[in-house]
Amino acid sequence: SRSIDLAVIPGDGIGQEVVAQGLKVLNAVLPQDVKLETKEYDLGAQRWHRTGETLPDAELEALRSHDAILLGAIGDPSVPSGVLERGLLLKLRFAFDHFINLRPSKLFPNTATPLAGRPDIDFVVVREGTEGPYTGNGGSLRTGTPAEVATEVSVNTAYGVERVVRDAFERAAARPRKKLTLVHKNNVLVYAGHLWKNTFDKVAAEYPQVSTDYLHVDAATIFFVTQPERFDVIVTDNLFGDILTDLAAAVTGGIGLAASGNINPTGAFPSMFEPVHGSAPDIAGQGKADPTATVLSVALLLRHLGYEAEAVRIEDAVSADLAERDGAAAPRTTDQIGDALAVRVAS
Amino acid sequence: SRSIDLAVIPGDGIGQEVVAQGLKVLNAVLPQDVKLETKEYDLGAQRWHRTGETLPDAELEALRSHDAILLGAIGDPSVPSGVLERGLLLKLRFAFDHFINLRPSKLFPNTATPLAGRPDIDFVVVREGTEGPYTGNGGSLRTGTPAEVATEVSVNTAYGVERVVRDAFERAAARPRKKLTLVHKNNVLVYAGHLWKNTFDKVAAEYPQVSTDYLHVDAATIFFVTQPERFDVIVTDNLFGDILTDLAAAVTGGIGLAASGNINPTGAFPSMFEPVHGSAPDIAGQGKADPTATVLSVALLLRHLGYEAEAVRIEDAVSADLAERDGAAAPRTTDQIGDALAVRVAS
Ligand SMILES: CC(C)[C@H](C(=O)O)[C@@H](O)C(=O)O
Ligand SMILES: CC(C)[C@H](C(=O)O)[C@@H](O)C(=O)O
Repeated sequence: SRSIDLAVIPGDGIGQEVVAQGLKVLNAVLPQDVKLETKEYDLGAQRWHRTGETLPDAELEALRSHDAILLGAIGDPSVPSGVLERGLLLKLRFAFDHFINLRPSKLFPNTATPLAGRPDIDFVVVREGTEGPYTGNGGSLRTGTPAEVATEVSVNTAYGVERVVRDAFERAAARPRKKLTLVHKNNVLVYAGHLWKNTFDKVAAEYPQVSTDYLHVDAATIFFVTQPERFDVIVTDNLFGDILTDLAAAVTGGIGLAASGNINPTGAFPSMFEPVHGSAPDIAGQGKADPTATVLSVALLLRHLGYEAEAVRIEDAVSADLAERDGAAAPRTTDQIGDALAVRVAS
Repeated sequence: SRSIDLAVIPGDGIGQEVVAQGLKVLNAVLPQDVKLETKEYDLGAQRWHRTGETLPDAELEALRSHDAILLGAIGDPSVPSGVLERGLLLKLRFAFDHFINLRPSKLFPNTATPLAGRPDIDFVVVREGTEGPYTGNGGSLRTGTPAEVATEVSVNTAYGVERVVRDAFERAAARPRKKLTLVHKNNVLVYAGHLWKNTFDKVAAEYPQVSTDYLHVDAATIFFVTQPERFDVIVTDNLFGDILTDLAAAVTGGIGLAASGNINPTGAFPSMFEPVHGSAPDIAGQGKADPTATVLSVALLLRHLGYEAEAVRIEDAVSADLAERDGAAAPRTTDQIGDALAVRVAS
């Protein structure tokens, strides 16, 4: 019989609340014969305040044994910037070699977009997850003096670029429009840009059915707001992907709806799924958080584990739920949205 | 008697056409007693094709003697990516120590914005111009092999960060709202981020009248589309500024209206003014290009040289011209727009 052994990191702020709804929907959608086991990990700001630890080796080892990880949100203003990001979130992405940071962007019916004319938005960003300016390479000299020099090194390897580019071509080839856009800044970042562009062109030759183009990252932001319907699949660097996917979330109704997967497609390590939004401490514990991004992250998790039909059921449920949301009514609580989605996927 | 000794680099594509209108308006706005001398420099794609040169030392030296530089647009698809950017545009910014890359963003009346609800947008991005990932530091190893490693080094100095941060505080203090936002990514780029944030906080103590905040670059893109009216002055890194100002241009009616100044406020070198848009080879020579961004760049040029009243006259003329543009009428030619603006500033 089938089983899913899931690690759960609720984290900080609204993390706990949204993860609870994600698990509710997961339980509701799974066929009877699939045994779901979950184990919660206490990681995040509170743990750090209590023990000074972000992600001890023992827990990293324990996490490794699971089939996948569901994460709520990490971060709190009381923790110095960078401590939890580098010590926990990015540590997981790097330790488990999550080289695909997958971020679908879709403008669902009946949701608010800041864009006039409600363009038809449905694209996926395949963001590299283990290289670029995120490697922690760099340092500072004469720190705190008027002679300080601080550097950040973006590290890009043929190995790392080729695997994410190949993954993106596969995803593009599997979609109806079959279009892949490379985003970089190869007119300024010539060394990394050259590697990305050459790799992209080389792999493109193996996918004649996929149409391709290239955009500088600055120009890409323009098209995100003026012509987002032109995009199908985008492949890009870790930092450009970070920036573009927040913008994508904003134009498709806000980060309350944006899901993501930190994926190692080889299966060598557990992949991790999380909403793009943060811990939103200002609304934590009040039942105000929209759990939809977490629920959509559960869909990505199921798809990754081979439960395609269940993933689609969740995505359809979210579409239907959003289509029927009554903008004029009082906003539903976190729990009510979770309940509504659980009912839909079960039926 | 007063005089302006101006270097003009029309460049490629629509560059020639828009610069002609910029000069037309400049001539029209200048008081009788100001003698305007211009000298044209033949630089850009054609020159490179003809001679292989981007910016020879002799011309760099000659450019140095002018009071300011007006640039149209540089770039053509026939030139490999990076050649003209690094060999000409960035070379000028670095050689003349243009550490302030000034980019005002304003939603003028009666112009198209992709944003619903036409928010009230009027902010200025002070982009650092001589450091960060633009320094050309980096390289590649085993280039073209499966073992290639390519790096890009972002270089940030206390000297470089402090001078741009101070400039931004001065600009914020001189504006009615007196608000300055630092944009960086200090939760990931911790070394550079630390330097930027510490410098910002240190200088802030000298400007108690300026209110400050900090945003990560990814979050900033969200606010650019959901709440752009929250921004007054933004100070940021070279690359983040590049990305944010294209997005800013898009939400304020397109890069057809976005002006910029590459400024050395010390006066040690000539500053350079240019529209943010590129050479648009697809519409070059057809009289279709909107010269407004170039005309607004001329206003920045005049302000930099101390002709504040004339700068304001140009900006007011552009506002009035846009307010009266008839969206239903046939689009005016490049020349007609230039004529209309010249008439307005002269009267
Ligand atoms: C919190 C931060 C480290 C992270 C990132 O920069 O990748 C976040 O912005 C994201 O996009 O997942
Ligand atoms: C052309 C390119 C080098 C330049 C930059 O990246 O600065 C442009 O995008 C700009 O914003 O002026």
